[in-house]
Amino acid sequence: MEIKNEKITSRDVDFAKWYTDVCKKAELMDYSSTKGFIIYRPYGYAIWEEIQHYLDKKFKETGHENVYMPLVIPESLFNKEKAHVSGFAPETLIATIGGKEEIQDKLIIRPTSECVFTDFYSRIISSYRDLPKLYNQWCSVVRWEKTTRPFLRGSEFLWQEGHTMHATEEEAIKETLGMLEIYNNTGKELLAIPFSVGQKSEKEKFAGAKATYAIEALMHDGKALQCGTTHYFGQGFSEAFGVKFADKDNKIKYPYQTSWGVSTRLIGAIIMVHGDDNGLVLPPYVAPIQVVIVPIQDQKEEVQKKVKEYYDRLIKLGLRVKLDSSKRTPGWKFAEWEMKGVPLRLEVGPRDIEAKKITVAKRNDNTKVVIEETNLEKEISSLIKKVHEEMYQKALEHLNKNITPVSSVDELTKVVNKGGYAKMMWCEDEICETKIKELTTATLRCLPFNEKATGVCPVCGKKASKVALFAKAY
Amino acid sequence: MEIKNEKITSRDVDFAKWYTDVCKKAELMDYSSTKGFIIYRPYGYAIWEEIQHYLDKKFKETGHENVYMPLVIPESLFNKEKAHVSGFAPETLIATIGGKEEIQDKLIIRPTSECVFTDFYSRIISSYRDLPKLYNQWCSVVRWEKTTRPFLRGSEFLWQEGHTMHATEEEAIKETLGMLEIYNNTGKELLAIPFSVGQKSEKEKFAGAKATYAIEALMHDGKALQCGTTHYFGQGFSEAFGVKFADKDNKIKYPYQTSWGVSTRLIGAIIMVHGDDNGLVLPPYVAPIQVVIVPIQDQKEEVQKKVKEYYDRLIKLGLRVKLDSSKRTPGWKFAEWEMKGVPLRLEVGPRDIEAKKITVAKRNDNTKVVIEETNLEKEISSLIKKVHEEMYQKALEHLNKNITPVSSVDELTKVVNKGGYAKMMWCEDEICETKIKELTTATLRCLPFNEKATGVCPVCGKKASKVALFAKAY
Repeated sequence: MEIKNEKITSRDVDFAKWYTDVCKKAELMDYSSTKGFIIYRPYGYAIWEEIQHYLDKKFKETGHENVYMPLVIPESLFNKEKAHVSGFAPETLIATIGGKEEIQDKLIIRPTSECVFTDFYSRIISSYRDLPKLYNQWCSVVRWEKTTRPFLRGSEFLWQEGHTMHATEEEAIKETLGMLEIYNNTGKELLAIPFSVGQKSEKEKFAGAKATYAIEALMHDGKALQCGTTHYFGQGFSEAFGVKFADKDNKIKYPYQTSWGVSTRLIGAIIMVHGDDNGLVLPPYVAPIQVVIVPIQDQKEEVQKKVKEYYDRLIKLGLRVKLDSSKRTPGWKFAEWEMKGVPLRLEVGPRDIEAKKITVAKRNDNTKVVIEETNLEKEISSLIKKVHEEMYQKALEHLNKNITPVSSVDELTKVVNKGGYAKMMWCEDEICETKIKELTTATLRCLPFNEKATGVCPVCGKKASKVALFAKAY
Repeated sequence: MEIKNEKITSRDVDFAKWYTDVCKKAELMDYSSTKGFIIYRPYGYAIWEEIQHYLDKKFKETGHENVYMPLVIPESLFNKEKAHVSGFAPETLIATIGGKEEIQDKLIIRPTSECVFTDFYSRIISSYRDLPKLYNQWCSVVRWEKTTRPFLRGSEFLWQEGHTMHATEEEAIKETLGMLEIYNNTGKELLAIPFSVGQKSEKEKFAGAKATYAIEALMHDGKALQCGTTHYFGQGFSEAFGVKFADKDNKIKYPYQTSWGVSTRLIGAIIMVHGDDNGLVLPPYVAPIQVVIVPIQDQKEEVQKKVKEYYDRLIKLGLRVKLDSSKRTPGWKFAEWEMKGVPLRLEVGPRDIEAKKITVAKRNDNTKVVIEETNLEKEISSLIKKVHEEMYQKALEHLNKNITPVSSVDELTKVVNKGGYAKMMWCEDEICETKIKELTTATLRCLPFNEKATGVCPVCGKKASKVALFAKAY
């Protein structure tokens, strides 16, 4: 019998190797001939399309509009906001030759587009009537990275970047937190990933921002992954770029700005939160293929007829269904669709047909259920929902189990070395934060909302004012 | 009364000025601080999203899959196919600095991605079982242009590029012509633009292609605009990049390749085919807003209630509807939505409400019809269809009226100088084609399918073998 995938590395043996094995063998991506730049293969790109589809709808429902801004930014423009420049300059890719001639004002391939949006806003905003401006763009950005990993850190990745301008500070902060909530819901509703949500420390915030907020997820190996950020800029960029508006009171003011983004890094999160030793495990609402139908003995006409009938019935439900009629053995197909993490697999053979039953394999827990043929629509709809909930609950349990309160640096070190979050009372002094990083390589992932500090900071012994989550991170 | 737009330049006075006026005042685009690079504003980008939505569905229905390939191409890879290089090298933007260090193998910002796709195909194709490969990518490309015009010629534009590989020449040619048919239908079904469809001459074909096919549209001023192309490559790239497969007969062969693309240039075509002296005129199926509702005396509660009711009823039909409740005068709003080319405008005031009637303004011919309130859904649905058909017919008449058979170079010169296509019998000698270009600046737009050559080529007097359309072009 034809054998499909040689086994992949087990997660417990070598998690990093397991990860790249899954990326490659589930055909999510491939390496390209441009060092550090990956190819998003159809199956990986289709996951991104589902994420785009979900988020784009949410953005539009909340009044945002899509635009497209230039790929390249003149160095002189990029240099206008100082904190921003110093954060990004070390990892920029720069074009210096155009049409065989040297370019005077060199062009930076966008690593992010705050400058470009703010520059544009300076020309189209002049009155309070022009506010708010709620723009978003879907594009790729380039950051020249020395070491890269598929979806997690690469020289080019796909993302969306929202950039908004508001008349008041209050409204801008509301926007910053509102978009964070949309990102958080993406975990609950689409990715089956529970996020830790909170503010970033001064040390970890975005270059040029007044405040950065983040959704952080915990991977299977106990490392954290920053999955999305929203930034409140105050008037810093507005002032640097001269964006001004006449307010209702006729006074000339600088508007308040935000930006926010998530990227194809979310694909990395899906892989590392849900995957198992048989490969990818996709949450059903983000899966490009939600149900795969594998015929058994498909040379028989009754089988061919039946799988086609099931396919048509499920497609009518609006599900994404694949009928695998390829010339492979059922065993080969099982392994293939397991590796690709398809949530539900229908196995349809002559015996099942005779009994008017269908065997459904659930990828998330590798169990099988047998359903009545007549109830196909109802059963599959309810299984899709069930699988999503089971995956979310499992991830939530993993997260909760791995948040450990610590009251000494030794305890913290043990927790982050083992994997997981150390929950520490913090004095908010950057010196203590830096000390932990130097000792353990763990970083302050976020300051969760609605948590009350008590006692003292275990690093310096001073009174604590914030609760902080520390972890090693990707 | 507040006045909205100062008049734009009339088309007959200065068509080029009229065009940029419409681009700017309909808020489709703006210039950026990166010379030659434009900003796609929300209203312009939304048109592109409608085009994407239509085409992406067609591509997927015909078995194509989306991928995303690297933005930058190492010069060494780009140089592999000689004809291709010489076509694109003069207009490339090149990155030479990454992370503050000089890059050894310089990186070309993609002007098109044949090289990248073929290089990838060389690694994933090895058997006839791997064929066909039908990939497409939505992205932006960069071509360093000296003179630029919004949507028509710019240093960066948005497009899709399909790249496919096939086991046989026959199948590849079928793909090339099949995609051309999809593009042609986009004109009929979405853009209300009739295209002239045919093959490009050797002189005008794509760098590296064996054959190029095109859809060409005739603008209001009588100039032609190439709106999309499909290319058949034969095995040229396959050989240069070493893409090989074991066929059913166990022989090692090079696969046959195609590529095809349309871009945001289509927005330029929409503007110049349909626009009038009041601004943009959008065909309803591609319009981001298909119906705008303008309340008259909207301080009155009955008016507010009624417009909301109409809005809800039309949204339920799946139409894209805008209720303009902004604090502007009705006159201002009329001018605004006329400039933006919204196909249907509903005017709803107390008198209309009392009479249970609605006044509908049709943007395409600037006429008004009065409909019964109870028939709203039926009447608007049928008006949407009617407007599309009227716009297509009008454009078709303009096209047909402006194709003039010519039998001498003098006649040809008169026709192309006046504007429109000169239909000429051609000997297929490039010398004659070049002579016409030198004399008139007109180029051979395409060799239409299903036309039979008769008589002689008027340039050289030799026997004609093809029918050719010549025109001045953008």
